[in-house]
Amino acid sequence: MKYGRTFNFSAGPAMMPEPVLEEIRDEMMNYRGSGMCVMEMSHRSKVYQQIIDEAEQDLRDLMNIPSNYKVLFIQGGATLQFSMIPMNLMKNGKAVYIETGAWSNKAIKEAKKVGEVIVAASSKDKNYTYIPDCSDLDIPEDTDYVYICENETIHGTTWNKLPNTKGHVLVSDQSSMFLSKPCNVSDYGLIYAGVQKNVGPAGMVVVIIREDLIRDDLTDLPIYLQYKTHADNGSMYNTPNCWAIYCCGKVFKYLKSLGGLEAMHRMNLDKAKVFYDFLDSSKMFRGTVEKDVRSLMNIPFVTDSAELDAEVVAATKAAGYDNLKGHKSVGGLRASVYNAMPKEGVEALVKFLKDFEANHS
Amino acid sequence: MKYGRTFNFSAGPAMMPEPVLEEIRDEMMNYRGSGMCVMEMSHRSKVYQQIIDEAEQDLRDLMNIPSNYKVLFIQGGATLQFSMIPMNLMKNGKAVYIETGAWSNKAIKEAKKVGEVIVAASSKDKNYTYIPDCSDLDIPEDTDYVYICENETIHGTTWNKLPNTKGHVLVSDQSSMFLSKPCNVSDYGLIYAGVQKNVGPAGMVVVIIREDLIRDDLTDLPIYLQYKTHADNGSMYNTPNCWAIYCCGKVFKYLKSLGGLEAMHRMNLDKAKVFYDFLDSSKMFRGTVEKDVRSLMNIPFVTDSAELDAEVVAATKAAGYDNLKGHKSVGGLRASVYNAMPKEGVEALVKFLKDFEANHS
Repeated sequence: MKYGRTFNFSAGPAMMPEPVLEEIRDEMMNYRGSGMCVMEMSHRSKVYQQIIDEAEQDLRDLMNIPSNYKVLFIQGGATLQFSMIPMNLMKNGKAVYIETGAWSNKAIKEAKKVGEVIVAASSKDKNYTYIPDCSDLDIPEDTDYVYICENETIHGTTWNKLPNTKGHVLVSDQSSMFLSKPCNVSDYGLIYAGVQKNVGPAGMVVVIIREDLIRDDLTDLPIYLQYKTHADNGSMYNTPNCWAIYCCGKVFKYLKSLGGLEAMHRMNLDKAKVFYDFLDSSKMFRGTVEKDVRSLMNIPFVTDSAELDAEVVAATKAAGYDNLKGHKSVGGLRASVYNAMPKEGVEALVKFLKDFEANHS
Repeated sequence: MKYGRTFNFSAGPAMMPEPVLEEIRDEMMNYRGSGMCVMEMSHRSKVYQQIIDEAEQDLRDLMNIPSNYKVLFIQGGATLQFSMIPMNLMKNGKAVYIETGAWSNKAIKEAKKVGEVIVAASSKDKNYTYIPDCSDLDIPEDTDYVYICENETIHGTTWNKLPNTKGHVLVSDQSSMFLSKPCNVSDYGLIYAGVQKNVGPAGMVVVIIREDLIRDDLTDLPIYLQYKTHADNGSMYNTPNCWAIYCCGKVFKYLKSLGGLEAMHRMNLDKAKVFYDFLDSSKMFRGTVEKDVRSLMNIPFVTDSAELDAEVVAATKAAGYDNLKGHKSVGGLRASVYNAMPKEGVEALVKFLKDFEANHS
């Protein structure tokens, strides 16, 4: 790490690739001879149109997005998507949600304001430490979609096998795993991700939606809340978060240069293995979820005492490993190791924790 | 202008102060010893909390915002506010709107989806080239609020005297004039502004709302669309546009360093005078709106021929004065001269237009 930068294990916003930040810094005063910073550009200008077009194309290349899917850049975070999804997709007023943690729960709460929500499976009984079996759910015929949160940031679980939707549209919140591994977009009707975890700066969501799900009979909805508004106008009906699109576009190019999502997945498996192997060999620390659903991105872990947990958090912070305190609903610690976390960051933290354990036993 | 930067007359996003951009560049790789870029910071961290707290306080200082007003940072642009305002403020389901151009029109269209809209005055009859007399409007007793767009970006008009609301709440879209002059916040119930015109990067709206207008009986609304959600959580119920808050905070500090809004107003009057004096003395160019409502920020002007207009746009662009093409609904040219446009930019453009006129007559 150059520039005195620290290994930042935040659950999001989180680390961005250093070479991307350097490029952004170098283009700050005058973007490629345009005479202006990207923040100063009219979104209606040719120079900016090229930035957003390239960002979309690079994302399409990375994820191999089929041509019958639209890519939308929308503000308001996952929180606004919790509402936009049912408002736009509930034709019959009914949807199936799988409850796997805090984020799917928030989505359920908002969807209930719009229509009927059937929670067809839940892992609440064991504090969201597993992913329920969704191979044979009871899904009513007129269900508009089946909703999952594909990686629960707080609990540290991930879906390794998608639910059997029995032909219904699958909607997935990929916020904390977006671009961490290859994704077969055709398996989904709608994928969305707040970019502030695994891509760029906060303030934008990427929505990937199959075209036939974009309705034109929703003119009574607020214009910003209709997917059609964004789809028909290349995400520029109104001024988008131009800066986030620019920064994310750079990250997309960077991921392509590393070899794309297959390469990224190998690196993420490799990094996570370092950490999970340590947890499995430790006598002081242990992971909090079932092994077969462990997230590659968010790794919650605990000791046997809340006091010791707090001591570890303070010690890591003092040693320059930032944002390791676990979410209050799980306690303990959480290491978020998104795409931009270097392997040496994980290795250094593991070494620190090993030493801590040795000195405290 | 250093760094080969151009004078950018865009209606927004638009120029930002050069010293602010330099600071942002210098803090890119490691913000003040935090070990991270602001884009990488957890919004729940102490270092970020200080950034947002200072941004809010500096804005409060600049505008002298009374303590019974909340300052909110919300995503989704003015477009989302067009809906949030009636959704949150229409208790009786009725509001008065004044129609002064494209942006008040869009607000009217969205408000009609929520409740009854009474357009009590309009300047549509003369293509929005004036501000209607609003000293004695017919306002029903149960009107929830009176809505104005205080500076119409496209048409180039501004309100120099606020409407007589007869005791009703005044709501104002200040997007294209925010912080351009002193503002008596107590005259309003709600002020909002997309920051991408006169402050910072796109992707954020500042909402200044009187506390008693924040309702807690709107729990059926999407959680993101309730002002209460943002007010109760210091604009961080979910991850905000952290970067925009950081950049805007720097602009707030910069404006304070220049002497605040009174100083800014003097500079803006001075700059606009240079341009309007030129228009009033020109035989080729003329302003498009009535003199008493001319905007200090957006100056539309035309020649007598669309061909000549296009020729001027091309010539200015070639000479390094960017984004001068007028909006299609007005035609001709438009010079947007927000706070960050230096006086020498206006003087240089005026000299260029004078020379152009001399060479073409």
